[in-house]
Amino acid sequence: MAQKPSIPKGTRDFNPLEVSKRNYIIEIIRKHFERFGYQPIETPAMENRETLMGKYGEEGDRLIFKILNSGDFVKKVTPELWEQKDSGKLTPVLTEKALRYDLTVPFARFVVMHQNDIDFPFKRYQIQPVWRADRPQKGRFREFYQCDADVVGARGAVQELEFIQLYDRVFSDLGLKGVTVKVNNRKILSGIAEVIGAPQRLTDFTVALDKLDKIGREKVEAEMIAKGIPEASVRKAAPLFDLQGSASRQLESLKAFLSDSSVGMQGVSELEFLLLETERLGLHTASCQMDITLARGLNYYTGAIFEVSAPSGVTMGSIGGGGRYDDLTGIFGLQDVSGVGISFGLDRIYLVMEELGLFPSALSQTLEVFCLNFGAAESRAALKLIMQLRDRGIRADMYPDDVKVAKQFKYADKREVPFVVLIGDEELRQSQFTVKDMKTGHQESYPMEDWQRFAARLRP
Amino acid sequence: MAQKPSIPKGTRDFNPLEVSKRNYIIEIIRKHFERFGYQPIETPAMENRETLMGKYGEEGDRLIFKILNSGDFVKKVTPELWEQKDSGKLTPVLTEKALRYDLTVPFARFVVMHQNDIDFPFKRYQIQPVWRADRPQKGRFREFYQCDADVVGARGAVQELEFIQLYDRVFSDLGLKGVTVKVNNRKILSGIAEVIGAPQRLTDFTVALDKLDKIGREKVEAEMIAKGIPEASVRKAAPLFDLQGSASRQLESLKAFLSDSSVGMQGVSELEFLLLETERLGLHTASCQMDITLARGLNYYTGAIFEVSAPSGVTMGSIGGGGRYDDLTGIFGLQDVSGVGISFGLDRIYLVMEELGLFPSALSQTLEVFCLNFGAAESRAALKLIMQLRDRGIRADMYPDDVKVAKQFKYADKREVPFVVLIGDEELRQSQFTVKDMKTGHQESYPMEDWQRFAARLRP
Repeated sequence: MAQKPSIPKGTRDFNPLEVSKRNYIIEIIRKHFERFGYQPIETPAMENRETLMGKYGEEGDRLIFKILNSGDFVKKVTPELWEQKDSGKLTPVLTEKALRYDLTVPFARFVVMHQNDIDFPFKRYQIQPVWRADRPQKGRFREFYQCDADVVGARGAVQELEFIQLYDRVFSDLGLKGVTVKVNNRKILSGIAEVIGAPQRLTDFTVALDKLDKIGREKVEAEMIAKGIPEASVRKAAPLFDLQGSASRQLESLKAFLSDSSVGMQGVSELEFLLLETERLGLHTASCQMDITLARGLNYYTGAIFEVSAPSGVTMGSIGGGGRYDDLTGIFGLQDVSGVGISFGLDRIYLVMEELGLFPSALSQTLEVFCLNFGAAESRAALKLIMQLRDRGIRADMYPDDVKVAKQFKYADKREVPFVVLIGDEELRQSQFTVKDMKTGHQESYPMEDWQRFAARLRP
Repeated sequence: MAQKPSIPKGTRDFNPLEVSKRNYIIEIIRKHFERFGYQPIETPAMENRETLMGKYGEEGDRLIFKILNSGDFVKKVTPELWEQKDSGKLTPVLTEKALRYDLTVPFARFVVMHQNDIDFPFKRYQIQPVWRADRPQKGRFREFYQCDADVVGARGAVQELEFIQLYDRVFSDLGLKGVTVKVNNRKILSGIAEVIGAPQRLTDFTVALDKLDKIGREKVEAEMIAKGIPEASVRKAAPLFDLQGSASRQLESLKAFLSDSSVGMQGVSELEFLLLETERLGLHTASCQMDITLARGLNYYTGAIFEVSAPSGVTMGSIGGGGRYDDLTGIFGLQDVSGVGISFGLDRIYLVMEELGLFPSALSQTLEVFCLNFGAAESRAALKLIMQLRDRGIRADMYPDDVKVAKQFKYADKREVPFVVLIGDEELRQSQFTVKDMKTGHQESYPMEDWQRFAARLRP
């Protein structure tokens, strides 16, 4: 019995139009990555299990896809271990390899492995799929692309400044106008924790504070206390609830609030540089905004933090994010290498572009010229013409069999072909071809040797 | 203790230059695929295990990477099965998913799954990695890219003709001149088996015959007999040893030899069409050659068979191949869909291009303009200039920190930057920038507001 085919849940097939749209986004991201001096690398889909395990927390370890050892994998398991029937204990013995979970840990591994061949500072980009055994849901997949740009070995604040420019240029070029690049600094968050005297509760604090706009001050304070933040700390945080107005006003309030925390003041100063210089350089279509509730990957980042939100009116989580992490490669034994990077969320950008109708309509027009097939001799003449057009860079094709003309025209319609070429027996006798403009319906005949005149209509 | 990082054997990291070279090949292949009317699809890295198993023979089943089920995978195993400790029997219970082994089976699965959304004939291309648990060796990897173009739902011989043109155009465009596209037809091989009366020994027969040039007739015959081909059959095959001269002479001899086999004569007629029409259309730099010993994937192909060999003088196996398979989708329940396709061997093409020095030298020049960093104020001015250049499409960058100038110049040298821009305090005061042409050593200063004049040197 033949199988009814399906694919694993959380994975996707992409049809031609979807591939073209995805590549359209990817190529624009790539173009700007390269203009900004980033160089591409690629790493294997499979890493050694030990390279990945322990890098993403307990949850992450569970979500990493492991590859069953080839051959007689049972042989490696001791009888005692086999008796225990413990999946957790068996996994390290049954699997040596795993699918990459993100592009950052493989990049850190790459930098350490190839440190003698790399010219630092190293600006690399990487656009490859990653895999996570997450519960699939709308907009969350088990296989998805990440588009990352990172710099290692550079501490200058200019890098952070550049990333805001990079976000702006990519989204402007995609026609996705009005995105907001929210910025914060991990050091400000550390400063806040210091000042209010609740360093252990920083995550709960920022998660609650983030809801200020939606649920109001009272409920935010209630949530903080419910999460175990001492009331005294919540009271001390009062000035943060009043952060409003222009960036410079907010920065002044923050400076007053954090004046006793040197790390906090350092964070304010870094953020201030970023905001001022961004204003001086200008942005094409994006805007940049400070947001002290921004705390993505809190345990990970050590300096600037970025997050990009879609234009207002579009309901979508962040479409990009990143930040500085001061010890990228320490886990692999190379100390003191600072990294800073950002990521573009391909799938979400795709959804936003689709919702706003931003994909060029030309993406669905994959053929420019289509020849009908009227039989053996006619199709041989057609093929010669087609090859000449292709050699001029024109995407041209012919129906492969001489089926009914109506069926061939229907196919040409579906492929949205602008020009259909007819070479029937009459044309063959007169050594010419007829071109039908599918938009206007207008037909025109050319002598075969005049094909260049027709080609020039498409490639002037 | 930090881990000393490594990657699984048979997998590879690609550095920026390697990625650029690989993308150079891939983009040329993609360009011609699209000119020829092929449309891209992408399928997930992971397929259901059952989709892949049993499609590549016993050897193939072993070489497929299986993914260990997530969570408590032991729970699904019955105590009896656990007792047996049999890796082969446990695999189907421990794994639901597997990594794709080639692009053809996923494509067949795609066609069946999406048959109602596809406009047939469907010309698709697919450029994605595949994984095989093969023993790694020189030029053979556990992760490698396949670049495939296939047509389904078209029986016309024009498709085969087009594939020869496609090979020619891709390899000509890559500068890889003088490749040979060898063609054969499965029906000719069936005819030979019929005529010599040894249908079961066809593989052994062609494998031996293929060595004729290298080891001579006597040894070939000895090998055939050693492999169990009856002496009478070997004697009957005598005319095949004398196939020589032009294609038309060889075809005439074949016709005489196969006159009693209708399938054989059908094969000769198809091959003849292909050779004649290829001659009529012409090829840019490749040549096309019949080769009746060509028998790749014997159990798979049903009509034309292709194989491309590198230019003479380069020691390398085939750099491409393909053929017609009359029942592509039957395994998934969709009968009577004919397919024909070819593949480009990316890794081998890369090695040949490298050996012949065919990669453009510009691939290593990733930056066009590089600004030195002389401090905070200077670098802010530099960044503004750089952003203006980038907006003109120029790949420009700056050293991220104001380290010693010699170190910055050394970096610029390594990156092969043609123009280095200097904005020191003197330039800053006069609101200008100095450009050093790294080839000639010539320096020239521009007022800041004249940056367009400099940009025009790079983008006239």
